[in-house]
Amino acid sequence: MQIARVCGTVVSTQKLDSMRGLKLLVLQPIDDDGQPLPHYEVAADLVGAGTGEWVLVSRGSAARVESGREQCPIDALAIGIIDTVSVENRQLYNKKDQY
Amino acid sequence: MQIARVCGTVVSTQKLDSMRGLKLLVLQPIDDDGQPLPHYEVAADLVGAGTGEWVLVSRGSAARVESGREQCPIDALAIGIIDTVSVENRQLYNKKDQY
Amino acid sequence: MQIARVCGTVVSTQKLDSMRGLKLLVLQPIDDDGQPLPHYEVAADLVGAGTGEWVLVSRGSAARVESGREQCPIDALAIGIIDTVSVENRQLYNKKDQY
Amino acid sequence: MQIARVCGTVVSTQKLDSMRGLKLLVLQPIDDDGQPLPHYEVAADLVGAGTGEWVLVSRGSAARVESGREQCPIDALAIGIIDTVSVENRQLYNKKDQY
Amino acid sequence: MQIARVCGTVVSTQKLDSMRGLKLLVLQPIDDDGQPLPHYEVAADLVGAGTGEWVLVSRGSAARVESGREQCPIDALAIGIIDTVSVENRQLYNKKDQY
Repeated sequence: MQIARVCGTVVSTQKLDSMRGLKLLVLQPIDDDGQPLPHYEVAADLVGAGTGEWVLVSRGSAARVESGREQCPIDALAIGIIDTVSVENRQLYNKKDQY
Repeated sequence: MQIARVCGTVVSTQKLDSMRGLKLLVLQPIDDDGQPLPHYEVAADLVGAGTGEWVLVSRGSAARVESGREQCPIDALAIGIIDTVSVENRQLYNKKDQY
Repeated sequence: MQIARVCGTVVSTQKLDSMRGLKLLVLQPIDDDGQPLPHYEVAADLVGAGTGEWVLVSRGSAARVESGREQCPIDALAIGIIDTVSVENRQLYNKKDQY
Repeated sequence: MQIARVCGTVVSTQKLDSMRGLKLLVLQPIDDDGQPLPHYEVAADLVGAGTGEWVLVSRGSAARVESGREQCPIDALAIGIIDTVSVENRQLYNKKDQY
Repeated sequence: MQIARVCGTVVSTQKLDSMRGLKLLVLQPIDDDGQPLPHYEVAADLVGAGTGEWVLVSRGSAARVESGREQCPIDALAIGIIDTVSVENRQLYNKKDQY
């Protein structure tokens, strides 16, 4: 999985029927200093993540294993909102510090 | 998923039978300034996207989950035409501005 | 899918039984100027592509969806020989110009 | 698979139900000199790996083939703690030397 | 698939049960001059490849399609030992020249 920061949303009305009702997040992967990389990816959201939050993103067929999502043509899914990332005994990120 | 701009088409007549009737788009991924990257990918199109439009592209087995496409050997699919991409409270892209 | 140029072949006699009888192409992906990149990939061939031709390559489980190929451990397949690639109202490639 | 060093952990409380109870490791891939690369990935842990240990990481649907994990939306899994990595008749890594 | 040179082995005793008995190779992908790249990957071996040999490596779910390997959490497999790689009417590699 990747650690990524939610930085926006994508809206698409002309799309496959199986995509209806899915919220689509724009994400930036996080580098080893905790900074967002200048690169966008899009993931479906089932955890209610908001802009500025860090999420855990799973890619590939993992995005479709949830019951009822098998026919949905997505290849990335936010599977959790991150509370803390700890690296070498320090905290790279703590959600509480952000708010 | 990736945000990409439709920049062309590919025509292939000598191909696997399961590929018959599929429209193939040439795409350029979009960078964080909204500019197309100098790199081409090809995706099948089921949403009727035209040159210049931005689309959402799903890769891997996601391209084959639609009913009737399970035996089609594609690894990328345009799953939606993008209306807007919003990043950090500004619009990176609005389809209306393009026309 | 990727656009790639066929540049050679690989021969392997000591291999998994499920690989018997498969022709293996060496490919170079094509950059945005239509030039082959200095990087090799190998794909199985079911369309009879020859050196110098441009092919459409599908990767991942897509390579095994054809009936009878489900147990074949390949992760890339040439699925079509390309006739033309059109980008921004010009032809990046036309097979007829090559011969 | 990739060789990676365990460098931390991720905690997420607001997540998909299928993710409950899974320990999440922060990993750094190892370069050809045996040094961790400045790049983080996250993998689920079923082998009890601790910080500083080297692990073998499998990605993609491989992370979900274990019985009972088919519905868990993970795309990376630590599948073994590494004892030794031998390259060209020398040891790049020996777990015993670390402790 | 990728062309890679076998350069070593990985030993792991504390691992998932489904990994028991599998030989794990350390591989270096080959560049377009036939030189090994400074980058390691690990693949399971079912063809009996030894150090210095060139192998064909398949990645992703392809590594698990062999009968009896469906539950084995590997994402890369050496599927053949390479005899020759021919590119543009020259031989990039001939196994006979190595011994």
